[in-house]
Amino acid sequence: MPPAASLRPFQLDRSLSERLADEYGTPLYVVSEAHFRDRARQYTGAWTEGDVSYACKANSNLEILRWANGEGLSIDVASRGELEAALRAGVPGGRIRLHGNYKTEEDIRAAMQAGVAEVVADSLLEIAHLARLGWRGHLSLRLALDVHAGSSEKISTSHPDTKFGLSVATGDALAGVRSALDFGLNLIGYHCHVGSMMPVPGPVAEAARSMAEFAKRTQAATGFWPLALNLGGGLAVDYTPEDDPVSVSAFCASIAQAAKDALGKDWPELRIEPGRSIAAPAGLTLYRVGVVKRSSSGRKFVAVDGGMSDNPRPALYGARYTVQSFRSGASEATTVVGRHCESDVLFEDVDLASDVEPGDLLQVLHTGAYNASMSSNYNRFPRPAMVAIDDSGGSRVIERRESLDDLFRREGGEI
Amino acid sequence: MPPAASLRPFQLDRSLSERLADEYGTPLYVVSEAHFRDRARQYTGAWTEGDVSYACKANSNLEILRWANGEGLSIDVASRGELEAALRAGVPGGRIRLHGNYKTEEDIRAAMQAGVAEVVADSLLEIAHLARLGWRGHLSLRLALDVHAGSSEKISTSHPDTKFGLSVATGDALAGVRSALDFGLNLIGYHCHVGSMMPVPGPVAEAARSMAEFAKRTQAATGFWPLALNLGGGLAVDYTPEDDPVSVSAFCASIAQAAKDALGKDWPELRIEPGRSIAAPAGLTLYRVGVVKRSSSGRKFVAVDGGMSDNPRPALYGARYTVQSFRSGASEATTVVGRHCESDVLFEDVDLASDVEPGDLLQVLHTGAYNASMSSNYNRFPRPAMVAIDDSGGSRVIERRESLDDLFRREGGEI
Repeated sequence: MPPAASLRPFQLDRSLSERLADEYGTPLYVVSEAHFRDRARQYTGAWTEGDVSYACKANSNLEILRWANGEGLSIDVASRGELEAALRAGVPGGRIRLHGNYKTEEDIRAAMQAGVAEVVADSLLEIAHLARLGWRGHLSLRLALDVHAGSSEKISTSHPDTKFGLSVATGDALAGVRSALDFGLNLIGYHCHVGSMMPVPGPVAEAARSMAEFAKRTQAATGFWPLALNLGGGLAVDYTPEDDPVSVSAFCASIAQAAKDALGKDWPELRIEPGRSIAAPAGLTLYRVGVVKRSSSGRKFVAVDGGMSDNPRPALYGARYTVQSFRSGASEATTVVGRHCESDVLFEDVDLASDVEPGDLLQVLHTGAYNASMSSNYNRFPRPAMVAIDDSGGSRVIERRESLDDLFRREGGEI
Repeated sequence: MPPAASLRPFQLDRSLSERLADEYGTPLYVVSEAHFRDRARQYTGAWTEGDVSYACKANSNLEILRWANGEGLSIDVASRGELEAALRAGVPGGRIRLHGNYKTEEDIRAAMQAGVAEVVADSLLEIAHLARLGWRGHLSLRLALDVHAGSSEKISTSHPDTKFGLSVATGDALAGVRSALDFGLNLIGYHCHVGSMMPVPGPVAEAARSMAEFAKRTQAATGFWPLALNLGGGLAVDYTPEDDPVSVSAFCASIAQAAKDALGKDWPELRIEPGRSIAAPAGLTLYRVGVVKRSSSGRKFVAVDGGMSDNPRPALYGARYTVQSFRSGASEATTVVGRHCESDVLFEDVDLASDVEPGDLLQVLHTGAYNASMSSNYNRFPRPAMVAIDDSGGSRVIERRESLDDLFRREGGEI
């Protein structure tokens, strides 16, 4: 494994990018097995307190799930489909945890059938459902802790105005503990996830202290002391140089210490659930430039052969990325747009070589998370292929490009 | 056809909603053939100046394209996939127009092979490509007119800072006319599309005047006078009572008059391209409520069994919708959220019956456009089925629900 993998996101040189584009076409998702495994190992190396679980909503491609499983990570799933992905990737049910703010009866029954290790309950109603359906596995309660994560509102998930979890402030959380114990469910502890794209461990440390306080009050009231506290995920990645998050090891050390300090000497197993910070740096997207033009305002536009269908994050969150051409000349502020029939601004005012021409390749770093998993067929665009790069630079398709026939499979549109 | 169709968006009564949910499951897209056809007829009735074309990016389901074709609308496509959809729906190539800010060579070759009537060129480079590839059909030039449409920036598309079209201000538009004529291409006129969700015809009327001025100056410079001016689309729909757009007939009358006044007596054929205003009111989404809870801030949350994967517009554009339960009691401000692993707020602070309970059905109106066509598999959610309702209240599947197997088809994930 290249030692540099731990320091930098995955990127291609010109010759490999051209070879991949020629062989597989563009747009193309490219993921590096070495980078993914290296990021996973950073977590398993830094986190000695208990389970590290991969939050597979970031990228649940089956081959990627096999890498996560192979690195000893358990898998978080948040739907019937993600559960199915983990199972098809060969992850044993006992290494799977089921999340979600609204699990259907079908979700719970499928988890029971698969022998899923743990369900994280999100509401009082769900605790009752689990009891009624005869859930025998582990049970945690997701707590709403009134902690602000300070990232985008759309991905901040434990503030006082969240849909997630049992609120400590309203008493639902304590009622949840009592209810789970009354039903005789196998309650093992608490879970929280305060948000995403956090450059510093502070909000998670605050959540850990808040969970510890709740655990102590609840022990006094009910006698229940958790076997496991799950601190969730949320570490940012350096989509651009301005992001500059702390390292995985610093993040892990800080939140573990905060939890232990707050819990006192009888701390339970501590768990974490990274997703983006493992998958994002391991992937990039290759696009082919089609049109270069200047608007009447003077803005330079470069249109590529993908768009919000393969990366909706700029449109959804105002997310920024690092975009690179394979030219070495002077750069200028350039707005990279997609092919969709709306503004479809992908990367606004990025620094790009000023002599970029139609036919050039661009690589966008850190697209290994929340790109393929959020992709759509808007404008009937077929979704890109995903190609894995192995240690020796060899490549293979781990998700084939969508065909025109695929687009009509549910409509009986054969001609 | 029910006469009320022209006045109101499609909505279900309690008994039909329950029958559909029982038979087809939820979430479920439901579209009314009568409402779609009625909206199409409002356009064909009000627009006597030339071609009315359905902008199929709004909803390119094959059966819906058959309805549009059956009502005499031609079809706008903006990609190889949308072209394929129109052809599979039986639309003759001669009734199809190809759009897009970056058409690949494959797009253009496919259009040539299908005998597509017209290409709308978006750049000088593309005009040269069309000449090189031997394009023989009609050619229009999309103009960037520096008109602000006043709607969301993401869907305002002819301002001075747009990726679309040949800028009149920079001289690219005039150069495009000269280039097309020099190449001997079959130039028939100009196209513009100033934006979406416009409640009044003003911006389109302004664009028409601006196009007319350009046409006159260009005639003086080159002798070319257009055979057709295409004013695009953009009429809003009443997602909520606050939207209150003008009627189709008032919109059509106003923009036609503005164009004719500006062009003088020798006006060419005038064309329009509605999409959302035909498709949106003809469709709704049925969801099943799973969880009802109150956060520590006091906000009432109702979680439904879909989310941003079946309707990304609230997350993308802050779009608002009308949400209805089938209960008649007092209502209260309620935030409807989806099942995805982020905030996934679908409908914030909507008025909803205060006694809504888990298991209830909700219908969301005006989802016939930009819902199915923008849907994703985020969190490995299977995409909903789409069901068509005919005049007699009968229903049939026009797009089947995605299966678990469908989700893994490109990854070889059989077990």
